[in-house]
Amino acid sequence: MGQVRNILFIMCDQLRADYLGCSGHPTIKTPHIDALAKRGVLFTNTFCQAPVCGPSRMCFYTGRYMQSHGSTYNGVPLNIGIPTLGDHLRELGVTTGLIGKTHMAADRAGMKRLGIDPASDDGILASQCGFEPWERDDGLHPEGGNDPNLAYNVYLREQGYEGDNPWHDYANSGLDKNGEIASGWRLRNAHLPARVEARHSETAYMTTQAMTKIGDLGDTPWCLHLSYIKPHWPYIAPAPYHDMYGPEDVIAANLGEREKNDPHPVIAAFMAHEESRNLSDEDKRRHVIPAYMGLISEIDDNIGRLMAFLKKQGRLDDTLIVLTSDHGDYLGDHWLGEKELFHEESVKIPLIVANPDSACDATRGSHLDALIEAIDLIPSFVEALGGTAKPHVLEGKSFLPLLEGDNGTEWRDEVYSEVDYAFRGARLALGLKADEARAYMVRTERWKYISYDNFRPQLFDLSKDPNELIDLGTSKLHDEIRKNLATTLNEWLRLRRNRITIADHEIDKRTDNYKDRGIFFGVW
Amino acid sequence: MGQVRNILFIMCDQLRADYLGCSGHPTIKTPHIDALAKRGVLFTNTFCQAPVCGPSRMCFYTGRYMQSHGSTYNGVPLNIGIPTLGDHLRELGVTTGLIGKTHMAADRAGMKRLGIDPASDDGILASQCGFEPWERDDGLHPEGGNDPNLAYNVYLREQGYEGDNPWHDYANSGLDKNGEIASGWRLRNAHLPARVEARHSETAYMTTQAMTKIGDLGDTPWCLHLSYIKPHWPYIAPAPYHDMYGPEDVIAANLGEREKNDPHPVIAAFMAHEESRNLSDEDKRRHVIPAYMGLISEIDDNIGRLMAFLKKQGRLDDTLIVLTSDHGDYLGDHWLGEKELFHEESVKIPLIVANPDSACDATRGSHLDALIEAIDLIPSFVEALGGTAKPHVLEGKSFLPLLEGDNGTEWRDEVYSEVDYAFRGARLALGLKADEARAYMVRTERWKYISYDNFRPQLFDLSKDPNELIDLGTSKLHDEIRKNLATTLNEWLRLRRNRITIADHEIDKRTDNYKDRGIFFGVW
Repeated sequence: MGQVRNILFIMCDQLRADYLGCSGHPTIKTPHIDALAKRGVLFTNTFCQAPVCGPSRMCFYTGRYMQSHGSTYNGVPLNIGIPTLGDHLRELGVTTGLIGKTHMAADRAGMKRLGIDPASDDGILASQCGFEPWERDDGLHPEGGNDPNLAYNVYLREQGYEGDNPWHDYANSGLDKNGEIASGWRLRNAHLPARVEARHSETAYMTTQAMTKIGDLGDTPWCLHLSYIKPHWPYIAPAPYHDMYGPEDVIAANLGEREKNDPHPVIAAFMAHEESRNLSDEDKRRHVIPAYMGLISEIDDNIGRLMAFLKKQGRLDDTLIVLTSDHGDYLGDHWLGEKELFHEESVKIPLIVANPDSACDATRGSHLDALIEAIDLIPSFVEALGGTAKPHVLEGKSFLPLLEGDNGTEWRDEVYSEVDYAFRGARLALGLKADEARAYMVRTERWKYISYDNFRPQLFDLSKDPNELIDLGTSKLHDEIRKNLATTLNEWLRLRRNRITIADHEIDKRTDNYKDRGIFFGVW
Repeated sequence: MGQVRNILFIMCDQLRADYLGCSGHPTIKTPHIDALAKRGVLFTNTFCQAPVCGPSRMCFYTGRYMQSHGSTYNGVPLNIGIPTLGDHLRELGVTTGLIGKTHMAADRAGMKRLGIDPASDDGILASQCGFEPWERDDGLHPEGGNDPNLAYNVYLREQGYEGDNPWHDYANSGLDKNGEIASGWRLRNAHLPARVEARHSETAYMTTQAMTKIGDLGDTPWCLHLSYIKPHWPYIAPAPYHDMYGPEDVIAANLGEREKNDPHPVIAAFMAHEESRNLSDEDKRRHVIPAYMGLISEIDDNIGRLMAFLKKQGRLDDTLIVLTSDHGDYLGDHWLGEKELFHEESVKIPLIVANPDSACDATRGSHLDALIEAIDLIPSFVEALGGTAKPHVLEGKSFLPLLEGDNGTEWRDEVYSEVDYAFRGARLALGLKADEARAYMVRTERWKYISYDNFRPQLFDLSKDPNELIDLGTSKLHDEIRKNLATTLNEWLRLRRNRITIADHEIDKRTDNYKDRGIFFGVW
């Protein structure tokens, strides 16, 4: 074990924190991920800063809260003025690239305004969220999708899977009883085996691409963001993962009658979405979740393959390995499907960190319950590589001390998450304009407070109600708690780090130094 | 009178709202500015969004609140991702340029990150806050300053004012009794005539440059930002302005014993600054203010010259003319010098708008008391030119309806201003770190509420205490008022427009349209 030279930053998409063996799922099999957790630590209270793919990822990739980077939903371009992970790491001489998904939308207007050619090296980096796009693939390719030459489709065709879009017709579809293509876009087909061999699936393909790239990089220090689309829908897995699990392996839904019968207005609007109605149907849920679990076990097997490769290459000794997810998946809990709201099923994420540094030996195999934010990753990466994180730009902080045995008493008391549901039908159902659909979460060890623009807040007492079935948002007994958490939220809103173009230590140098610069004012 | 084709955006620096004849000053002579107000309207309740040069100007130039653009103090670079006035107007085909001061600091790190050559056309615009720098001159040029070829210095030398820095030695210095150079950097020299003829002063020079440029532009639609450094210090004026006013012309200081003896901690720290101690000394104040007034009358004469030129050129009929200032000047009021805090003397600014459109005839010569923010200028400019302002980027709103006779009942109830005094000695005296020195103002017609990080708030009842001498920040009788205004502030903090890369109408188009794009989730 030695000094960190490389970072392997693995992200799954829509992987719930509690759907791993090491995090306590009773039936799922994730032996390789569990082994990775044994080699490092499992952070059991990690939260994404926005429970939706794009904005969550932009938080991971910029180290800033959602409203601090402004990319508030899938497809909202990340402003060109916001530095990214790659910018922070390249300053340390670390080649930073991507294999898989980012959900980055380029700020074309900003690039045009500044005269940046999108096809230039700088333009490509700016368009790709600061990653060298070793292989960019956001993983959703409908008919008429905009990239006819998608590398994974080319690969599939080379393996004999034919047609314009084998991603859909093979990797994400099965065959029905009549031998017709049964699309994975439909939940009803979740039980079918996908029409690719597992070794040709997206998960296997991206893993292989990562291994090839790591081999090619040799001794060049690197940060590789290996970003799987799965277990995100389409919920359909290749054999043998398609029937590795059955309805009997599905844990009970986390549901309360009260939350169904007297829901918060925003929750009610989301409950009315098609995905919520379908996923909260127990039969459909038990039909779909086995495929979701199979996709996770498939990732797990590929993590095993990747770890064996790293071991063989000698890279386990100098590579910090992180495995996480951009957000969770309701899977019918709380009468909801998908994500976007702040229940633990949606906002809590898995986080495993294996740091080869011997300073971290004391915590290996531990489960740490400190409150972690996704935006803590960049500062941790920078410090692991021997750099100094920029607190005026990065709103999180390095968790390396926790790996090294710090007991976390001075760590932090709250985590935050934000959502902007302007793009969702729920917003229209609630009669809101596009700028009226923001919400915020403050979560402490005990409390979760959710503040919505235009609606009453919610409150959950996680110590008495860990399943979040009793909304104390109107409880008179909890007036004071809500008031205090509202104050905490407001103070946080005031402290966004907007002054990103100058470091505080530079300010200290320049404070009150007018006369040194020959400028005299108010001097008699 | 006709349709607006051009914008003449005149800014003075540190010109208090109440130091004009038209705004009620009893002794100052500003006949040409008063005539401009007669041709348009005088907005009597206009507020800068940051009472310091750089951040206030960045609010004017970006149409965004201070923390929304992040350039929180003089010298803090404006993030390259923030669009500016020039970007908004060039989209309308309007050439937008600068003569004078902006206080813009270029985001060199951002430009480097994005591969933008600072010397390229795009790099120059990005460095110059989106203005074509027809003549950039920030107006403060100490010995050893960084531009040996400053155009105004070259000009002065051509007129026979010799040396390395005639800006200082002539335009901003007098001669003492012994014939030695007496620097305008020192308040004690404010009574002396500057060593330039008035026709060679900065104010006259910049005015001439503006006239030349307007002539050269011909029928090309333009926005010219004519940005005078004066009446900002150095407080020294050329003859005859140096003794146009005497101590008898100086209005009484606005001072209270209570505010001196029991000040708010932040105010107390600013009172301890050298400029506050000197300017609140009545003898020194009466020595300095006549020079300040002379500099204003000098600007006024040049405004007269400029208006005569515009008339001759036929430009009065197609040019929207705006005259304002970046902030005020305490001039010893409230025991303070300079600006940076939120008393009216500092945060209120003059605003005259003369719109040639006949739709505005109804209000010509009026004083309008609607609450106006500096960030309202860009939306007003855009709409005057026939464009549509971008509300997802621009946080203010067009005041054109008020010019056209709208009675303002639906206008707005509050204005906001922000400060970050990290760079000031007061911050050190208060024992604060660089990220702990923010404050916010909410001002309604009646109330002014000031919220400081780390200190108690202030409150003034402007209806009973228009001079702001009675701080109700701890008054129990006003608990409810403060609470309500704190809520107003918090709601405003939540509504910053951070999602600047996509327009709300685009979001409306894309809301809930997944299936249209071939993406099916949660569909059985």
